[in-house]
Amino acid sequence: MSRLDSFIARMQAQRDCLNALKPAIDNQPGPILEVGLGNGRTYDHLRDLFPNREIYVFERKVAAHPDCIPPDDRLFLGDASESIPRAAAKLGATAALIHTDLGTGDHAANVAMGRWLGPALDALAGKGGYVLANQPLEVARWQRLPEPAGVPKDRYFLYRVS
Amino acid sequence: MSRLDSFIARMQAQRDCLNALKPAIDNQPGPILEVGLGNGRTYDHLRDLFPNREIYVFERKVAAHPDCIPPDDRLFLGDASESIPRAAAKLGATAALIHTDLGTGDHAANVAMGRWLGPALDALAGKGGYVLANQPLEVARWQRLPEPAGVPKDRYFLYRVS
Repeated sequence: MSRLDSFIARMQAQRDCLNALKPAIDNQPGPILEVGLGNGRTYDHLRDLFPNREIYVFERKVAAHPDCIPPDDRLFLGDASESIPRAAAKLGATAALIHTDLGTGDHAANVAMGRWLGPALDALAGKGGYVLANQPLEVARWQRLPEPAGVPKDRYFLYRVS
Repeated sequence: MSRLDSFIARMQAQRDCLNALKPAIDNQPGPILEVGLGNGRTYDHLRDLFPNREIYVFERKVAAHPDCIPPDDRLFLGDASESIPRAAAKLGATAALIHTDLGTGDHAANVAMGRWLGPALDALAGKGGYVLANQPLEVARWQRLPEPAGVPKDRYFLYRVS
């Protein structure tokens, strides 16, 4: 399997998980958080799925397509290790959905980030909400859910916040 | 259809077209050219599909994953408008396959680029070879082919060089 194959599979898993979560998120109050804007494709998908919801975006430095840049008051700029606590102070543990797609091709760095990222995001996660991540995150009050139908195992990681 | 949906569809079309071309390329002499390295995912896919073929890569400035960087003697660095003529002087019109995935989210700029990109690449295209592009290219001796089975129309553009 080439990197192109695995990238396509990961993007499909991301999209299919988000689509599958829509009915549950529609019934869960609170904002939606997109951690890592990148080129803004997933943010655009979230806007399509949830047109009437507050969507907050976390990004070190915005480099997205001009059509996919959130309004200033929905953007937490800077390194995630600093912007996530800042957002938690503002929003509290209220999010209906947190989607995170941070990281690089450096596996060791991603694993190290996962250790602090889960607990940091937990300060934003609303009770009964969902966390969808491109990497495994370990938080005591999060329960891992099985992948939605049709999504291959361990491409994406879905949690329910209790 | 969100930008995420259309991106996934475009990546699938790219991959499915490359896979469908493999038997024809295996029977066509000459190098394979990857115009625009990006993160190197498609280059990795080409290496997988054609492990014994010379693959040359064109890139303005390499920023790919470290595992997906071609050897120095297979890399044409610099702006495509300059590196393509340089490659043509070295390789001649010999390529079995040219895959090009240049461009940005700026539609007008991409259309303008398409006007010079086709004729520039024609100087590298071997008789009987194939050109696969993320945008329409117009060259008199290239005949557009229908999309392979299962690939949606006009997501990717396939040509045969006569």
